[in-house]
Amino acid sequence: MTRTNKRILIEDLPRGHLSTDHFRMDEAPVPEPADGQVLLRTILLSQDAANRAWMQGATYRDAIESGQVMASGAISEVVESRADGLTAGDIVWADSGWQEYAVVSGREVQRLPGEHRPLSHLISLLGVAGKTAYHGLLNVAGIHAGETLLVSAAAGSVGSLVGQIGRIKGARVIGIAGGPEKCRWVEETLGFDACLDYKDTDNPLPKQLSAAAPEGIDVYFDNTGGDILQAALFAMKNRGRIACCGAVSMYDDKPRPGPFGVPGLLVVKRLRMEGFIVMDFADRDADAEHDLAMWARDGHLTVVEDILDGLEAAPAGLVGLLNGENRGKRMVRVAPDPA
Amino acid sequence: MTRTNKRILIEDLPRGHLSTDHFRMDEAPVPEPADGQVLLRTILLSQDAANRAWMQGATYRDAIESGQVMASGAISEVVESRADGLTAGDIVWADSGWQEYAVVSGREVQRLPGEHRPLSHLISLLGVAGKTAYHGLLNVAGIHAGETLLVSAAAGSVGSLVGQIGRIKGARVIGIAGGPEKCRWVEETLGFDACLDYKDTDNPLPKQLSAAAPEGIDVYFDNTGGDILQAALFAMKNRGRIACCGAVSMYDDKPRPGPFGVPGLLVVKRLRMEGFIVMDFADRDADAEHDLAMWARDGHLTVVEDILDGLEAAPAGLVGLLNGENRGKRMVRVAPDPA
Repeated sequence: MTRTNKRILIEDLPRGHLSTDHFRMDEAPVPEPADGQVLLRTILLSQDAANRAWMQGATYRDAIESGQVMASGAISEVVESRADGLTAGDIVWADSGWQEYAVVSGREVQRLPGEHRPLSHLISLLGVAGKTAYHGLLNVAGIHAGETLLVSAAAGSVGSLVGQIGRIKGARVIGIAGGPEKCRWVEETLGFDACLDYKDTDNPLPKQLSAAAPEGIDVYFDNTGGDILQAALFAMKNRGRIACCGAVSMYDDKPRPGPFGVPGLLVVKRLRMEGFIVMDFADRDADAEHDLAMWARDGHLTVVEDILDGLEAAPAGLVGLLNGENRGKRMVRVAPDPA
Repeated sequence: MTRTNKRILIEDLPRGHLSTDHFRMDEAPVPEPADGQVLLRTILLSQDAANRAWMQGATYRDAIESGQVMASGAISEVVESRADGLTAGDIVWADSGWQEYAVVSGREVQRLPGEHRPLSHLISLLGVAGKTAYHGLLNVAGIHAGETLLVSAAAGSVGSLVGQIGRIKGARVIGIAGGPEKCRWVEETLGFDACLDYKDTDNPLPKQLSAAAPEGIDVYFDNTGGDILQAALFAMKNRGRIACCGAVSMYDDKPRPGPFGVPGLLVVKRLRMEGFIVMDFADRDADAEHDLAMWARDGHLTVVEDILDGLEAAPAGLVGLLNGENRGKRMVRVAPDPA
């Protein structure tokens, strides 16, 4: 009996905005692992703005090409192993894509602490989102008690954690998000000191920023680029630091010029802008995992997850993520956590 | 007998490019110092792109206003002192402007080692130019032996020193300057490994950069901003550092958007861009003066100066500086060094 593997292919690479029409459902036989490979059963897909960036060309991974299974990091269970050091039942992380089953090389999977429950925490708090927030704020920008921290995409997977870590470190934390309801949620559920609504046309963001931080911003954690980065640049204090984490506003649109004031404002205000990728700090991941787990246990940090149900939810989930509809780390559940 | 003080006033603040028409010669009686003030006789004016920036609005100093004597840092001799700690014959640095004589508060002058000859070295090698090059390259960007260093405005006061310091530290040094003659001068007189001509329309800068540094740039010392910064951003290696020293291309023109790739390229390549102002490193100036003087004595570093003659030369001198016609540190000699 041949089992069926439901998959979602990227049919056309987007030229402008990504839509669900760029994807196509597909069924294929479950593949067989060759020597050195493992067969994986997908449990949870991680949904990330970076998925969209991969369609733009080669980054730190190869570009995604049309006709392929849509790429995605995922937590899976090893069903069958022909690779050294991996056995059936292991819980692993791999770039295994939008499909129920995947065959990958044993060298391309990373074993996870499979006894951890819920497994979703290994993607949110203890995964790329948590580590990105931790390393970007503490090891790239640096934050000190009494400083003012600004975070864009404050309701997002990374931003929601950045602001909470800033609070834990004694900073005053201002978020930026879209819409009054989301802003209220950021203040009430995540405990930010304030959250500014960049969609409020009556009260433009630069004006809101001056009111919320009349003395200026010490650290800006940029998850968006674009107009929000522009407003933040003008609001920075002298010697402010900007950690550039990603540029959601750029992934799903045509390339645009950078903000006014680069490099002029950088000189006059002595600003530092630094881009980073979480993998660069792998040697300090143990610190991140330790501190994040402790803060969550101690109740200082609320883990917020946004888990969609079923593989079919992945295309709309990613499009919605790029439009900022998620709250906390968005994932797609393809199968339940193993008992 | 009332002595006459020749002065140059800024008549109209420029809206677009600065020209000599924005200035006006003027004569006034030599002013008398009040209590706490000193009368200065100007010896050498420093000419700096920052002079133009001061016309744009307040920076780290008040904005220049029309009708005022044009502001400028200068080396002067104290003629008469009514300020504690200063006596006639002292050699000092002050923002005393384009005039033969100036009265300033004793608190606003900085005593210089008056026995140093030529005094011009206190403006070039050991002045703001030398310290900007030193701190920007060594304390902001950082440079290591074997790395590739790119410097814009390579024939300028700062750039000419940055490249030479880079060579001293074992880096491969590529300059950017305007015109084949100037580029040759940078290679032959300053000893850069290569100098690219950004004005060469047959061979655009990005192409020249790929040919000169096929593996990319580790450190870019930006003296210009604009299109040259754009080309450099695309040519940076992963984890490259950009020291933003000034933005000559922006001072004398309308504000323009920043380069493409901010923040996108900063993230993908993990770049660090940092603005600085030389005064921020005052606590390390002694190191800079020591090292720069030693390198010059040992013949590792050629001090290049571009000294115009007579106060009347100042307006055309500044306009020419903004157009990049200087080679090395431009100054205006108003009176000879004291015997």
